[in-house]
Amino acid sequence: MIHSIVWLKHECTVQTVEGRRNWGILERLNAGEVVIGDGGFVIALEKRGYVKAGPWTPEATVTHPEAVRQLHREFLRAGANVMQTFTFYSSDDKLENRGQSLKYTGAQINEAACDLAKEVASEGDALVAGGVCQTPSYLSCKSETEVKAIFKKQMEVYIKKNVDFLIAEYFEHVEEAEWAVQVLKTGGKPVAASMCIGPEGDMHGVSPAECAVRLVKAGSQIIGVNCHFDPMTCVQAVKMMKAGVEKAGLKAHYMVQPLAYHTPECNCQGHIELPEFPFALEPRTLTRWDMHKYAREAYKVGIRFIGGCCGFEPYHIRAVAEELAPERGIMPPGSEKHGMWGSALEMHTKPWVRARSRREYWENLMPASGRPKCPSLSTPESWGVTKGHADLLQHKEATSTQEMGHLLEMQKKAKSSA
Amino acid sequence: MIHSIVWLKHECTVQTVEGRRNWGILERLNAGEVVIGDGGFVIALEKRGYVKAGPWTPEATVTHPEAVRQLHREFLRAGANVMQTFTFYSSDDKLENRGQSLKYTGAQINEAACDLAKEVASEGDALVAGGVCQTPSYLSCKSETEVKAIFKKQMEVYIKKNVDFLIAEYFEHVEEAEWAVQVLKTGGKPVAASMCIGPEGDMHGVSPAECAVRLVKAGSQIIGVNCHFDPMTCVQAVKMMKAGVEKAGLKAHYMVQPLAYHTPECNCQGHIELPEFPFALEPRTLTRWDMHKYAREAYKVGIRFIGGCCGFEPYHIRAVAEELAPERGIMPPGSEKHGMWGSALEMHTKPWVRARSRREYWENLMPASGRPKCPSLSTPESWGVTKGHADLLQHKEATSTQEMGHLLEMQKKAKSSA
Amino acid sequence: MIHSIVWLKHECTVQTVEGRRNWGILERLNAGEVVIGDGGFVIALEKRGYVKAGPWTPEATVTHPEAVRQLHREFLRAGANVMQTFTFYSSDDKLENRGQSLKYTGAQINEAACDLAKEVASEGDALVAGGVCQTPSYLSCKSETEVKAIFKKQMEVYIKKNVDFLIAEYFEHVEEAEWAVQVLKTGGKPVAASMCIGPEGDMHGVSPAECAVRLVKAGSQIIGVNCHFDPMTCVQAVKMMKAGVEKAGLKAHYMVQPLAYHTPECNCQGHIELPEFPFALEPRTLTRWDMHKYAREAYKVGIRFIGGCCGFEPYHIRAVAEELAPERGIMPPGSEKHGMWGSALEMHTKPWVRARSRREYWENLMPASGRPKCPSLSTPESWGVTKGHADLLQHKEATSTQEMGHLLEMQKKAKSSA
Amino acid sequence: MIHSIVWLKHECTVQTVEGRRNWGILERLNAGEVVIGDGGFVIALEKRGYVKAGPWTPEATVTHPEAVRQLHREFLRAGANVMQTFTFYSSDDKLENRGQSLKYTGAQINEAACDLAKEVASEGDALVAGGVCQTPSYLSCKSETEVKAIFKKQMEVYIKKNVDFLIAEYFEHVEEAEWAVQVLKTGGKPVAASMCIGPEGDMHGVSPAECAVRLVKAGSQIIGVNCHFDPMTCVQAVKMMKAGVEKAGLKAHYMVQPLAYHTPECNCQGHIELPEFPFALEPRTLTRWDMHKYAREAYKVGIRFIGGCCGFEPYHIRAVAEELAPERGIMPPGSEKHGMWGSALEMHTKPWVRARSRREYWENLMPASGRPKCPSLSTPESWGVTKGHADLLQHKEATSTQEMGHLLEMQKKAKSSA
Repeated sequence: MIHSIVWLKHECTVQTVEGRRNWGILERLNAGEVVIGDGGFVIALEKRGYVKAGPWTPEATVTHPEAVRQLHREFLRAGANVMQTFTFYSSDDKLENRGQSLKYTGAQINEAACDLAKEVASEGDALVAGGVCQTPSYLSCKSETEVKAIFKKQMEVYIKKNVDFLIAEYFEHVEEAEWAVQVLKTGGKPVAASMCIGPEGDMHGVSPAECAVRLVKAGSQIIGVNCHFDPMTCVQAVKMMKAGVEKAGLKAHYMVQPLAYHTPECNCQGHIELPEFPFALEPRTLTRWDMHKYAREAYKVGIRFIGGCCGFEPYHIRAVAEELAPERGIMPPGSEKHGMWGSALEMHTKPWVRARSRREYWENLMPASGRPKCPSLSTPESWGVTKGHADLLQHKEATSTQEMGHLLEMQKKAKSSA
Repeated sequence: MIHSIVWLKHECTVQTVEGRRNWGILERLNAGEVVIGDGGFVIALEKRGYVKAGPWTPEATVTHPEAVRQLHREFLRAGANVMQTFTFYSSDDKLENRGQSLKYTGAQINEAACDLAKEVASEGDALVAGGVCQTPSYLSCKSETEVKAIFKKQMEVYIKKNVDFLIAEYFEHVEEAEWAVQVLKTGGKPVAASMCIGPEGDMHGVSPAECAVRLVKAGSQIIGVNCHFDPMTCVQAVKMMKAGVEKAGLKAHYMVQPLAYHTPECNCQGHIELPEFPFALEPRTLTRWDMHKYAREAYKVGIRFIGGCCGFEPYHIRAVAEELAPERGIMPPGSEKHGMWGSALEMHTKPWVRARSRREYWENLMPASGRPKCPSLSTPESWGVTKGHADLLQHKEATSTQEMGHLLEMQKKAKSSA
Repeated sequence: MIHSIVWLKHECTVQTVEGRRNWGILERLNAGEVVIGDGGFVIALEKRGYVKAGPWTPEATVTHPEAVRQLHREFLRAGANVMQTFTFYSSDDKLENRGQSLKYTGAQINEAACDLAKEVASEGDALVAGGVCQTPSYLSCKSETEVKAIFKKQMEVYIKKNVDFLIAEYFEHVEEAEWAVQVLKTGGKPVAASMCIGPEGDMHGVSPAECAVRLVKAGSQIIGVNCHFDPMTCVQAVKMMKAGVEKAGLKAHYMVQPLAYHTPECNCQGHIELPEFPFALEPRTLTRWDMHKYAREAYKVGIRFIGGCCGFEPYHIRAVAEELAPERGIMPPGSEKHGMWGSALEMHTKPWVRARSRREYWENLMPASGRPKCPSLSTPESWGVTKGHADLLQHKEATSTQEMGHLLEMQKKAKSSA
Repeated sequence: MIHSIVWLKHECTVQTVEGRRNWGILERLNAGEVVIGDGGFVIALEKRGYVKAGPWTPEATVTHPEAVRQLHREFLRAGANVMQTFTFYSSDDKLENRGQSLKYTGAQINEAACDLAKEVASEGDALVAGGVCQTPSYLSCKSETEVKAIFKKQMEVYIKKNVDFLIAEYFEHVEEAEWAVQVLKTGGKPVAASMCIGPEGDMHGVSPAECAVRLVKAGSQIIGVNCHFDPMTCVQAVKMMKAGVEKAGLKAHYMVQPLAYHTPECNCQGHIELPEFPFALEPRTLTRWDMHKYAREAYKVGIRFIGGCCGFEPYHIRAVAEELAPERGIMPPGSEKHGMWGSALEMHTKPWVRARSRREYWENLMPASGRPKCPSLSTPESWGVTKGHADLLQHKEATSTQEMGHLLEMQKKAKSSA
């Protein structure tokens, strides 16, 4: 195992890790290693033209495998040690609700996703994780049996494809997350569970600490949060989870895969409530320097599986890997195209840009929005509807004109009371 | 030729154009068609891990062709009709100055770039454009003969590879742009010329109107601006060019390929002077809705070659193509994954997001930065050094410690006088 | 008693209240009336040139009585029912520490203050309140006996001058506030107690609820908060006080006299920690329309003594009185010079300003800062020093060069850890 | 004449000027002295409750002389050398249009204004200036004879009361300003002329340079601008005036009396077009430190009559006087209550505030707005109506419901095209 790292000037030489390829996720975490996650595929591929905002389903694994493969490769190159299968929302109940069911089954999409993740993982030091997430069936108040059947169907593909471990992620309700973990546990692989909650807890107000304890008791070896909030908020939520687990005398590993968007004003439902979601979040995008702070803070708190979700581009993951290079002893392959803390600007044409080739400059910069007529914070649209509310029952049809009238009425009301 | 377009609900069915593949750039523009350009490769591939900020050179055409090919495909899918060869800064004098020369020659990089652009162009309705840009030799005060020799060497590759037309782009000094056009004209292909200037004109204060006249007289059939400024500012500059050309009794077609960053406070040197360049520009990124306004404005002004530069992702180009779909009679292929003006949000899980599936919502939204401790505008670092100043002489070596001391001194001075 | 109010168009005719002049503060509050307080004198008179920022002492009652009298009159005209003596920081220990002691004693300043307040109160429907506030002696860890002696000396002037009631205000530590109330109770007048705390409680972390209970038990009939936070935050703190008092089975009246500055980012020490304090708070100043929202919210929460502190100008108090005119049945005298919700703009020269003569316009306006290079929030300087820390020991001398060196060092440290 | 100034530590001792009381405005300016103007009365007294926004008329000189006198005194104390009569909009045609005519004539109001200004001027080193401003008659297209008669009537009062000089101020159209100057010249006193224009010139596009030349030719010895724009913009406009005068081979003294509001986004009509005018301008208010920069810049440009207009409070004028104390050799009386550059904070209770008692701190501070949901710039309402447009004809009646409907329609149109 080569863990040496040679720092030359501002950079360290990039070295690949050998002889460790047989270590699984738990071996790595048990050994105290930092595992770098990948970033979110849904938003990245939406921008590239392969995912449709609204349905958000991953049929591109079948229709445009080259695009999915390329994104996997970029995250691998950025330092990711986990290739998560691009299987978000690919349960049959969701596909049906989103109008994709006629073309491809969940199984078809998920098998293709496994193949792509495995292909790229084999090109570097990465594990493959098969993922399930919250279902429209749960939101529509289907039974535990029905919901569990959905998770089981997805898991069977991952077991057949022999992924390295399983992740139950993006759950707003701890109950559904527990159900998912209970199903995944039957697969015999390590199970990670990640909720899309912040410090206020799940949609019914269950605290991060209590969620954490319940997930560990359900069988997760790794717990944490993903999506919905910015990095610092997510780290804060995982910190609360960790405190809960420790107080309960339990043990777990911790993971965090936040948004790459600043969301300081969000309530418990996260960025989904921001008026800018999903098509005007650009100004909130974190810089690579924000990512350095995030990675450092996550590490300090004791989180060792550190990745990203919506908004993360490969360079964001690379920044995480670069910040933790001293601890990990390796630089990501993609750092051949990046000078630590901007050092490669020494080769820039303009002298004033060359003057920026140093850590102090970027660490202290407060970037301007370039939008003097825009505010810095928005008012989240907190409609206060949770599972059980009629407006959350999922259906197959697009919003009807009548339903839209009702929604616009509610939007108006929410605004005037803000 | 099929130009029909069928609008169903909010979307139009996507149809491909046939039987027109043999039209060149001038035939299209002469016929009054809108030609959609692609977006900038340098910044997009930097984020994906294949270009190094500082040198900014395009050796990825040789080392990682799959990444370059994928980006071409995404722009094609977004509606681009021009695949520009990824040959920015790939002249031998630049490569030598940026430390890449030992590995690959400019010719090697440029040939690979032509192959990739041609391969993807053949998959859809696109032309291939070979590009040259400003040289370190000019900045270092080399002779007209020396500088022209550099352009000639690059052009010879494009002619050999039989590209559809040539672009001389990213010139800060009109003199050097004229030299480039004079060389490219000898290739026998249509020539476009695009300067990276705003309404204040080139680095020596030559107005957009005068630059335009000189470029037309040098032989360009298409003129315009690219990079350095946000879309509305670039459109304004091209408008001034057009007025100049018309006042001089000349004729030309017009192109614009702006940044995807808001830069309202920039001086003549553009975003290069912003403190956020190049690693903290994220908050300035335009939304797709900003792109609708840009495309409409460019069209109104009479510009018909409309594309993008640094910061453009495929979805930005798609938004340009969607805005001009009524005029063009076609939707881009990638629109299968996008509902016009957010209409596909009708399929979103949350009711309040479904309420956003309409043009009025997105058109009027003022997106928040999410950064309450950051300003909305910065102070550009206007050092006032132009060609001829010692600090702009280009050299092969990275900035030395002594030089850096001098630069930090100048930076401090520039700040205190701002 | 005339409580009728006649609304003509947008305005109501201004009528004075007669026959009630003999009611005291408790009679009014017991009857459920709203009592309008005045605004802060220290900051208002600093801007007018009669108070020195730093010492903040009120010797202007002796040296420039016309200026103090005029400000009293403006608040009376704006609708204030309480003329608080301008006696802030006029205890002898403070005066000595601030270099005023040689010229005037606390007794001289306070007697003059009483005369001015009484003179103006007699011109309208107002009561006179004599005030004491926190002492440097407490901060410097003097004994209970010593501190109480200071309050007693001040109170004796108020009793001699026969003010209507007493206020112990601007206390950061509940212990010192209790001591003050215990002393004031011996005067035989109604006693109000107001702390300069927010929802986080006093400087040692005692919650608003607990502070409230202790103040009521010490003998205050009216309790609340003043200064240090913006109106909505102060109302929130008083709400917590009220909940505490009610939970304890006690009874009290409630008062609130907040800043007229927006302070959303403040920690427990309030606006004193803002980098803008005290000379760059201008952009945070509340508009009159913000005051309408404040007055309504305070009323809803059950607060009936509603006034202001630092930053309040007469028009801010008038806005409070106008918002509550329907409940109170009277408009303030100064409303003869103001159209409710901007209605008098109907007489403006420019038509677009006339179009603003309506409530909806002003209620929904988001005022711009006009400062695109400034942020919207600051980082409070939370040094974390409280009573007992050496840096808080008060002394007579101005900050020495050596001390300043130490302070700048601490400032630097606080910034880098922010 | 005592011009000595003694600097002790950060402050200079305050000394009064003697033996020069007989110098007029021209003697002072000819000698190269800096003359400090006062600030705007209309907005200051609106906040204090004595002026009604909309009509904006100055009947308070008769009804509440104590309030007007006090404001004069505060400006005198702040260092003002000019007491301008509070006679804004007090021509009979305006009073009639604004519903005040039945109570007091213009002559009554203006006589009272002269008495107040003279009384306070005699308490210090100040001159009295009688002022006239633009008339509704001109806006309503009355004849030169009619308009001039109005100015004459006002002037006769000033001559009778023997003021020191005359000011024609707040003119949007150079033609009307010329008429005013021509009338005032007949009074035999020095005449100053000040337009409320910015760098774009008057309402009909006459440039500052041309306005300046015409005003000098009409007989003004002092020319400049007041109101409508922030200090730096006003200084810029006066600079253009000065260049015009010098280019024409003429001579003049220069004055500037800007807003105390930041207005970077304003068009030719100035702050009147800002959505925040007149009741939500608070966040734009300049700090005292902004005033230091203004005073320095005005001085550098060669302006020697430096004062303020709307938004100026006494402490703003004091800051102007303190910045120019080295040049003038005196500190204003009010500086006894102010430490230069915050030096008196050395006496503050809290150590971190004591650390701010230095120039560097305040000079570089970027003050936050405290309003994260508000933008930093607004879109001016540029309706494009100027003299001659029906909507600008002035009438006696308040806006009717029908007219309001028309205005709201226009407002909507202006917004949607912004």
